[in-house]
Amino acid sequence: MVVRVMATGVFDLLHPGHLYFLTEARKHGDELIVVVARDQTARRLKREPYVPEHMRRTMVEALKPVDRAVLGSTTDIYETVVNERPSIIALGYNQVWNEQEVERECARRGVPVRVVRIGALPHDDLATRRIVEKILARGVKELSS
Amino acid sequence: MVVRVMATGVFDLLHPGHLYFLTEARKHGDELIVVVARDQTARRLKREPYVPEHMRRTMVEALKPVDRAVLGSTTDIYETVVNERPSIIALGYNQVWNEQEVERECARRGVPVRVVRIGALPHDDLATRRIVEKILARGVKELSS
Repeated sequence: MVVRVMATGVFDLLHPGHLYFLTEARKHGDELIVVVARDQTARRLKREPYVPEHMRRTMVEALKPVDRAVLGSTTDIYETVVNERPSIIALGYNQVWNEQEVERECARRGVPVRVVRIGALPHDDLATRRIVEKILARGVKELSS
Repeated sequence: MVVRVMATGVFDLLHPGHLYFLTEARKHGDELIVVVARDQTARRLKREPYVPEHMRRTMVEALKPVDRAVLGSTTDIYETVVNERPSIIALGYNQVWNEQEVERECARRGVPVRVVRIGALPHDDLATRRIVEKILARGVKELSS
């Protein structure tokens, strides 16, 4: 039986931390399905993405460890779990969900999963913020010169 | 004989236009080697990259159409051609080199190549600029609020 791993995230400005997360997630099974958060979900839970959802999905699916990338549900994060029926769900080091709660809710919906937690890539946890800060610093400098 | 294709670029904030370029380049042969421009080369020819060269190289090599990504030479763009000996060089629609000049210079250095030109992905040619503008617009708004 193919062991399907599922990982999820916004994946706004792709950087090596994302790649590390997906590469490590992929190691827990035979195929990796990535759920890319919809723009409105990212807006609600985190912040407005810089890159629109269809571009984020395309770029995530282009990464070697990823077998398929799908856009998430706009209303219920468990909808995609029920559709895709993974047996493993990989959470990133900074994703707030609780392992036991996710396992409990998936089981309740008829999809028994094991949740694994992927650690951070050392020195790379603030990569998106650093890229954004660099763009802002240069932009503001150019605007004021 | 394996037909080696070479493509080159800065690949600063990865977007579907880059992916399209690399996917199309890959179709011209059996393997694709991508030369990622050094920070100092990008600075000289285009603009300072937002993402440092080692991160740009890692992310390009993580893309499915890419077999290997290498950092370019800091002094001579033909150095990598001589080292990697491609038989095809793919140029992007907005890369300024002239096909015949590249073919002539590669031949002169003992690496006969055919240069192919890859077209633009429709509607996606300004993707990096649009991402940067969105970051700046939001950042400046936040700074002034």
